[in-house]
Amino acid sequence: MWLRISCDFHFEITVATPFILMLRPRSGAQQWIAREEYRLVPSVPVFEFTDYYGNLCQRLVAPPGSFEIHTAADVMTAPKIDRDPGAPFVEIQYLPDSVLIYLLPSRYCESELFWQMATEITTGRQLGYDQVAAIEEWLRMTIRYEPGSSDTPESAVGVNLRQSGVCRDLSHLGIALCRSLSIPARLVVGYLYGLKPMDMHAWFEAYIAGRWYTFDATQSSPQNGYVTIGYGRDAADVAVYNQFGPPIYPEIQRVQVLLLESEEN
Amino acid sequence: MWLRISCDFHFEITVATPFILMLRPRSGAQQWIAREEYRLVPSVPVFEFTDYYGNLCQRLVAPPGSFEIHTAADVMTAPKIDRDPGAPFVEIQYLPDSVLIYLLPSRYCESELFWQMATEITTGRQLGYDQVAAIEEWLRMTIRYEPGSSDTPESAVGVNLRQSGVCRDLSHLGIALCRSLSIPARLVVGYLYGLKPMDMHAWFEAYIAGRWYTFDATQSSPQNGYVTIGYGRDAADVAVYNQFGPPIYPEIQRVQVLLLESEEN
Amino acid sequence: MWLRISCDFHFEITVATPFILMLRPRSGAQQWIAREEYRLVPSVPVFEFTDYYGNLCQRLVAPPGSFEIHTAADVMTAPKIDRDPGAPFVEIQYLPDSVLIYLLPSRYCESELFWQMATEITTGRQLGYDQVAAIEEWLRMTIRYEPGSSDTPESAVGVNLRQSGVCRDLSHLGIALCRSLSIPARLVVGYLYGLKPMDMHAWFEAYIAGRWYTFDATQSSPQNGYVTIGYGRDAADVAVYNQFGPPIYPEIQRVQVLLLESEEN
Amino acid sequence: MWLRISCDFHFEITVATPFILMLRPRSGAQQWIAREEYRLVPSVPVFEFTDYYGNLCQRLVAPPGSFEIHTAADVMTAPKIDRDPGAPFVEIQYLPDSVLIYLLPSRYCESELFWQMATEITTGRQLGYDQVAAIEEWLRMTIRYEPGSSDTPESAVGVNLRQSGVCRDLSHLGIALCRSLSIPARLVVGYLYGLKPMDMHAWFEAYIAGRWYTFDATQSSPQNGYVTIGYGRDAADVAVYNQFGPPIYPEIQRVQVLLLESEEN
Repeated sequence: MWLRISCDFHFEITVATPFILMLRPRSGAQQWIAREEYRLVPSVPVFEFTDYYGNLCQRLVAPPGSFEIHTAADVMTAPKIDRDPGAPFVEIQYLPDSVLIYLLPSRYCESELFWQMATEITTGRQLGYDQVAAIEEWLRMTIRYEPGSSDTPESAVGVNLRQSGVCRDLSHLGIALCRSLSIPARLVVGYLYGLKPMDMHAWFEAYIAGRWYTFDATQSSPQNGYVTIGYGRDAADVAVYNQFGPPIYPEIQRVQVLLLESEEN
Repeated sequence: MWLRISCDFHFEITVATPFILMLRPRSGAQQWIAREEYRLVPSVPVFEFTDYYGNLCQRLVAPPGSFEIHTAADVMTAPKIDRDPGAPFVEIQYLPDSVLIYLLPSRYCESELFWQMATEITTGRQLGYDQVAAIEEWLRMTIRYEPGSSDTPESAVGVNLRQSGVCRDLSHLGIALCRSLSIPARLVVGYLYGLKPMDMHAWFEAYIAGRWYTFDATQSSPQNGYVTIGYGRDAADVAVYNQFGPPIYPEIQRVQVLLLESEEN
Repeated sequence: MWLRISCDFHFEITVATPFILMLRPRSGAQQWIAREEYRLVPSVPVFEFTDYYGNLCQRLVAPPGSFEIHTAADVMTAPKIDRDPGAPFVEIQYLPDSVLIYLLPSRYCESELFWQMATEITTGRQLGYDQVAAIEEWLRMTIRYEPGSSDTPESAVGVNLRQSGVCRDLSHLGIALCRSLSIPARLVVGYLYGLKPMDMHAWFEAYIAGRWYTFDATQSSPQNGYVTIGYGRDAADVAVYNQFGPPIYPEIQRVQVLLLESEEN
Repeated sequence: MWLRISCDFHFEITVATPFILMLRPRSGAQQWIAREEYRLVPSVPVFEFTDYYGNLCQRLVAPPGSFEIHTAADVMTAPKIDRDPGAPFVEIQYLPDSVLIYLLPSRYCESELFWQMATEITTGRQLGYDQVAAIEEWLRMTIRYEPGSSDTPESAVGVNLRQSGVCRDLSHLGIALCRSLSIPARLVVGYLYGLKPMDMHAWFEAYIAGRWYTFDATQSSPQNGYVTIGYGRDAADVAVYNQFGPPIYPEIQRVQVLLLESEEN
């Protein structure tokens, strides 16, 4: 499945402002970046680095005045999301070292508080995939998905109190519930083809049977068309942009995901 | 300054329990490990790895029955804590890549909520070291230090509400205040010679003028005698032990720090 | 300076063949990738990873039959190569940890054998930049540059015996000479605008005064227009492609570097 | 099996000399460090870091005069070396990313030159473990092991020409032969209980069936009692000490490996 994604920001900057962007999708096990654009207007020096989680990040200082960021990519994604009912739980001692960090509580996923709730939600389920599927289903039935309703991330505790949230918020609650059962889970930020209304999207992955599986409580049935930009413990780690100094909001933020007509790029 | 530190745990285990320990101090810029012991009774297979922050961690499964951990080390520490009034703030764009993660909010340091409070506390101070010194002093004056009063970590928001806490809690608030001013800050766990009552200790470091400086609001004056075991974003990342499954508390936990008589080991 | 680079390979594969490619330039301190393409015909699953040196590498298995790789990028490069006569040598104890590996001898840079030669070449020069400049000049005067003359890398010892070589070979000798003087040095592979005949290019960098400087003995005067694909200790680490199994040579390999007309992308 | 290892160096230093040491064994899958000592006389500032391969390294500047290094450790090692005839070859595309570097030629392992020889040595063997066992056996029969005969490492090509070498040299040839068959192989430096004459030792590991196996052509039969200090691509990467400036040789170098009487430490 070939997708063309794009994301454009237009800021009006008043004082020189440091930014850390995470807008360059990486090729990986489930996606291949065949074409990519990343333009800044005006053009400024940018330093790229790889963060602790392996995400490509870009550092720059936006100068006063109009500042635009244009990114686009043609991506081949996996034809469909893998579902694997019955896939078994991995005992802690067999988890790879690099996965252990996704068991710990984090800023927006206070997993140490959710063990009882998670146990109830997953009662009677087989350990592993089926537990996470039960959590995903529970989120879908219980927490009202309100796309576009929030500017600041909500933590799992907050989402559970409000019983509603944006894609990121639902994912935070899902992640906290998974981790409380000793299932590693992480937040993924990226694009989803067909999302309504179109915007950046967030979902979560759980580590089961030796690999990461995708879960998304905002969609009523398994979709394909996910494009990953980055992942991390929660929204504190995976921000499309981090900006320092007095807060600045984009004048314009436009996200598009097109299905390319042919299977060839 | 040569110190002999030791830490012993005695657990009674009922079901085989995975542990991740962080009990092996590393040699580094400010300390040299000249002798070290690390014994497990009974002896079980252990796998050691280095986490995202560079800490040495040990993975094992504690078998049912009595389980003891004995660690000790002879450490040469820096003769005194560096203090450096006037040391300047490092602008975001000049921070090393590896330090950026210490600007982000984390589980117990909700730094995005503390900008206003931090601004008030540091009014009139020069950017950098003097701001952190003001925060440390404010903590010392404002938040009641209650050693040994808490089993679970308290977040910066909670500490600020309660106006009291253990060493770790005060550090969480200090870290959140620093980060809200775009000063990277991290939690350090280890030992402090002369601590009363003796126990594991926690303090924080802030990144100023191109290096990390030590701050500790629990002590009335700059001490020497700090021995670092590990550091990370907050107590979620730096736990002397993480244990999975039904919670187990040590029957015995004994910490000692002795001053070795001679300057030679 | 905006450049459009492209590299195309056409292989005829007889048995399924694992490849590791290093064909995706990274944005970094000296270049910004504003547009990029990476197409495989036929399209096959690719896994991307970051190697020990930070290079983006792509793993795939080429299926039997015709196999094409097309890469292209629009790159903004530093307006000119930095030259810095007099920049001082960094004493070993002040080198960053991550740079130390570039002091060690490697497959094609037997630096432990070149101390005497390096000392003679750099007699009377100030320690640091001027030593490397003397080495570059000596290579330019002494070793005949024969573009396109070699399929397999030649080591520093071999280049010195033959007194001639391709860009990569001259760089190997330059690197060995630098390292023998305790100056960290590494091989860079990429593109050079205006190279005659046009092809992939290789040059070397030396670590002086706290940063990497570019040196290229194949060019008679400092050029601009360098685009880096990857770097490492020598050609064993930095190969545009590594192929496993019976050797396969490309039927076609075409490299282009164009100057884009406008300063805007 | 509990071993007490120790290694002592005595240098006479004339000018302040930077050293990088690799003398602190790490706990890992096959060994547990229960007690360790690391003393420097005189005591000097040391900075410890982890290199690309995960080895703990110590940086220091030895001052003029007598300089002593004393290290010792009590180590629990695996009860015996794993042997696994028939264990299968891992195809390139299934190797972990981090293992790929051990397929590349390196300073002392010119693997790209040994494919024909390796093919002959392993004719008729099953791919994987049995090939490496054939290489080990061929080394044992063909290359004369001359302990203590060399100060500088010899590369695989040199060892093959001379038909003799120290432990490190035999390992280099074994590694080159393995890599030429696309089997990842690395050099290990450490201690061996019962080695005659006692000294530091070197052997090699090959990656087969998803893990590393130990091979040692210097011993007539599989031994136990190996204690690993470090590993890397070859002796250029794994040196017990690297010293910069005019070469200095230890006045005294003493290595001991004792079997501790009891199974308890």
